[in-house]
Amino acid sequence: KIKTWLDTVHPVDLAEILTELKDEEILAIYELMDYEQLAEMIEEADEKAQIRLLKLLDLDEIIQVFSYMSADNITDIMGNLPFNETKQLLKMMKEENAGTIRHLLGYYSDTAGGLMTTEFIALKENLTTTEALLKIKQIGPKTEIIETIFVVDESKRLVGTVDLRDILVAPDDQPLKEITDYNVISVLPGTDQEKVAMIVSKYDLTVIPVVNRRGVLIGIITVDDIIDVIEAENTEDMFKMVGINDEEQVISPVRISIRKRLPWLYVNLITAFTASFTIGLFEDVIAQVVILATFLPIVAGLGGNSGQQSLAVMIRGLALGEIDFKNSKETLFKEILIGLINGTAIGIVTGLIAYFWRGNFFIGLVIFLAMVINMVIGALMGSLIPLGLKAVGIDPALASSIFLTATTDTFGFLIFLLLSSLFLKFMI
Amino acid sequence: KIKTWLDTVHPVDLAEILTELKDEEILAIYELMDYEQLAEMIEEADEKAQIRLLKLLDLDEIIQVFSYMSADNITDIMGNLPFNETKQLLKMMKEENAGTIRHLLGYYSDTAGGLMTTEFIALKENLTTTEALLKIKQIGPKTEIIETIFVVDESKRLVGTVDLRDILVAPDDQPLKEITDYNVISVLPGTDQEKVAMIVSKYDLTVIPVVNRRGVLIGIITVDDIIDVIEAENTEDMFKMVGINDEEQVISPVRISIRKRLPWLYVNLITAFTASFTIGLFEDVIAQVVILATFLPIVAGLGGNSGQQSLAVMIRGLALGEIDFKNSKETLFKEILIGLINGTAIGIVTGLIAYFWRGNFFIGLVIFLAMVINMVIGALMGSLIPLGLKAVGIDPALASSIFLTATTDTFGFLIFLLLSSLFLKFMI
Ligand SMILES: [Mg+2]
Ligand SMILES: [Mg+2]
Ligand SMILES: [Mg+2]
Ligand SMILES: [Mg+2]
Ligand SMILES: [Mg+2]
Ligand SMILES: [Mg+2]
Ligand SMILES: [Mg+2]
Ligand SMILES: [Mg+2]
Ligand SMILES: [Mg+2]
Ligand SMILES: [Mg+2]
Ligand SMILES: [Mg+2]
Ligand SMILES: [Mg+2]
Ligand SMILES: [Mg+2]
Repeated sequence: KIKTWLDTVHPVDLAEILTELKDEEILAIYELMDYEQLAEMIEEADEKAQIRLLKLLDLDEIIQVFSYMSADNITDIMGNLPFNETKQLLKMMKEENAGTIRHLLGYYSDTAGGLMTTEFIALKENLTTTEALLKIKQIGPKTEIIETIFVVDESKRLVGTVDLRDILVAPDDQPLKEITDYNVISVLPGTDQEKVAMIVSKYDLTVIPVVNRRGVLIGIITVDDIIDVIEAENTEDMFKMVGINDEEQVISPVRISIRKRLPWLYVNLITAFTASFTIGLFEDVIAQVVILATFLPIVAGLGGNSGQQSLAVMIRGLALGEIDFKNSKETLFKEILIGLINGTAIGIVTGLIAYFWRGNFFIGLVIFLAMVINMVIGALMGSLIPLGLKAVGIDPALASSIFLTATTDTFGFLIFLLLSSLFLKFMI
Repeated sequence: KIKTWLDTVHPVDLAEILTELKDEEILAIYELMDYEQLAEMIEEADEKAQIRLLKLLDLDEIIQVFSYMSADNITDIMGNLPFNETKQLLKMMKEENAGTIRHLLGYYSDTAGGLMTTEFIALKENLTTTEALLKIKQIGPKTEIIETIFVVDESKRLVGTVDLRDILVAPDDQPLKEITDYNVISVLPGTDQEKVAMIVSKYDLTVIPVVNRRGVLIGIITVDDIIDVIEAENTEDMFKMVGINDEEQVISPVRISIRKRLPWLYVNLITAFTASFTIGLFEDVIAQVVILATFLPIVAGLGGNSGQQSLAVMIRGLALGEIDFKNSKETLFKEILIGLINGTAIGIVTGLIAYFWRGNFFIGLVIFLAMVINMVIGALMGSLIPLGLKAVGIDPALASSIFLTATTDTFGFLIFLLLSSLFLKFMI
């Protein structure tokens, strides 16, 4: 009964279900599965589950399971295993396979090399479509993708691609050359995964070839792995923005979460004290007009939020490639203009409320001016921080929210209290 | 010279280049392009560019261009054209095509129906592989995807899928049934695009079939469109979080940006006044110990940022499906625990600094307590706001950052000033 169920459940779901079970239970189910099924399931499981599901097998069995997996997945798994086991497994593999894995293990996991796999179809350009189709029938079942056939020259350099559908409908023995598309987009193994994802998304690819510096085709990256990259990069951006150090998984143990968040909270504490010292400079002013203290969070808060809006637009714009250094000036001006307009709109209302609440025109005036200026500062810094970080080669999202509120708090207090001290005699 | 260049430049890049040019220049280049090239280019352009590039053609030409486009892209374009033109174009189309487009126009653009296209290969399950291959050669060139063949029964209900590679390697005249995979994942046309994207990502699909309530295959969604959905949903989350109303494009005119951001800034103003009134309640306390005012931004700021971290984790967790209502309690407890630990770590340092800076033990104690409590509140609210919004069917990201800082500001002030007034006699 379980055996028929195993045939109908999707490997992804199976992996999810098994990880809820105890080791003995998993092993009992393993008895009913062949190596191919095990391979499919483990390939699709998430990182932590992969290791757990694999560790229940002994090394011989792991080698068997690997024989049904793509090289990129084997590499990812090996990268997460203890060094000793990786070494042993490599020794036990066929020399040819071990060589491939060793090669792939040499690339950083967040580069094209770290994402690529080696199961592609590469055909020489001097074949005919009939010969090509024969080859495809042979190699096809072992490749990750079949729709796009890569065309290489005598030195294995990538020269173009052919659509399988064009081969299928082509007359017998037509030279492959005549249906090859020679405008092929490829990346180098060192290309950052974010860049690779941008290219795949822009050109609507389902697979992108990786070539070395001499143009030799060394691997392909499939779109399912690109989707994982996109999601990971988006998580990274949202996390980095608020001061959570890079982390691949949303769910992680408390200890790790603290190590990832606390350092930036300490940075935040330093910036918060800067804002605090700014208020400290004006203690005498506040002592004379205590109600000023009540307006501090309004000036700081609205400046902060208008800045967060600019920040979000900037970080997404940079991530999607819609904002680059070319048009960054234009975007910056636009954000400042928005800050000015929104600041004026919000400032007028706040000024009026303050005026009627406190019955003093100058309090209304000072808060109006402070709001406009601080919301422009927010927009300016919300745009400048990511651009600046990017300019010096740092992730534009890095703790940007913390740096932003540091500025809008400090400057908000400074401007509001400075203006207040100027108009102090009219407020008492 | 331009003509040979046109053959080598990718349609995506061509669209980008053309939109930088003046109308006359574009028209001059159009002279050198055939309808198929125009179609490829316009399909790949972004929304705004699409309309501009298309408007340079007259309606007859548009119909010609459409004949080379996928139904989903035609539908998207029609949806962005003035109603009159859409109507006229539909009249000019072949009745069959017009019917398809009218059908597709009936779906909301953010549902599976709004994303799907109708160019798929569906074969009856009683065919043999040889017959299947013949059909594929006929229909193949007109479809969006060729690797996955959909298998339907006599009533056109989707029953499974066949891999083209299995057909290629199968012996002649093998019944299609024998190589069909009957575990097929599909969605309904009303399924939210976010859900569709999650399924495609989870099961590593390059295409997902859309079936109606009777199980009839009515369309397919390809992975390139899913990538656009993922990016749009990520932009939406980051924008909504800081109070920017849904917007598909990062780059939009100032007028529209203001309309999208200002409403939430007004909401923010209301919440800021709540925080302000809270301070107002304690004006007499502050009047007696003015230095208390300097600590207000520290308590509020750190509570806010610790909350932002929980918020980011929660929003990403919900978006990726890693957090759901089942495990939400566990996540909530985890976040509160992190808030408590980080709050204590930060609170001790802040308390000590305050103690040495102001030379008063009770100021140190009060700030320590207030920090711990407010950072726990931050973590709690950072988790509860998205969960609560989701529970009542609202986008969990909606203005969550604004609601969060409202709470951490107000409660931060309240707790700090309440504790201060309790210990007031020891501070003077
Ligand atoms: Mg890898
Ligand atoms: Mg795209
Ligand atoms: Mg892969
Ligand atoms: Mg995968
Ligand atoms: Mg990034
Ligand atoms: Mg990155
Ligand atoms: Mg659509
Ligand atoms: Mg996936
Ligand atoms: Mg499409
Ligand atoms: Mg597209
Ligand atoms: Mg969403
Ligand atoms: Mg949505
Ligand atoms: Mg704040």
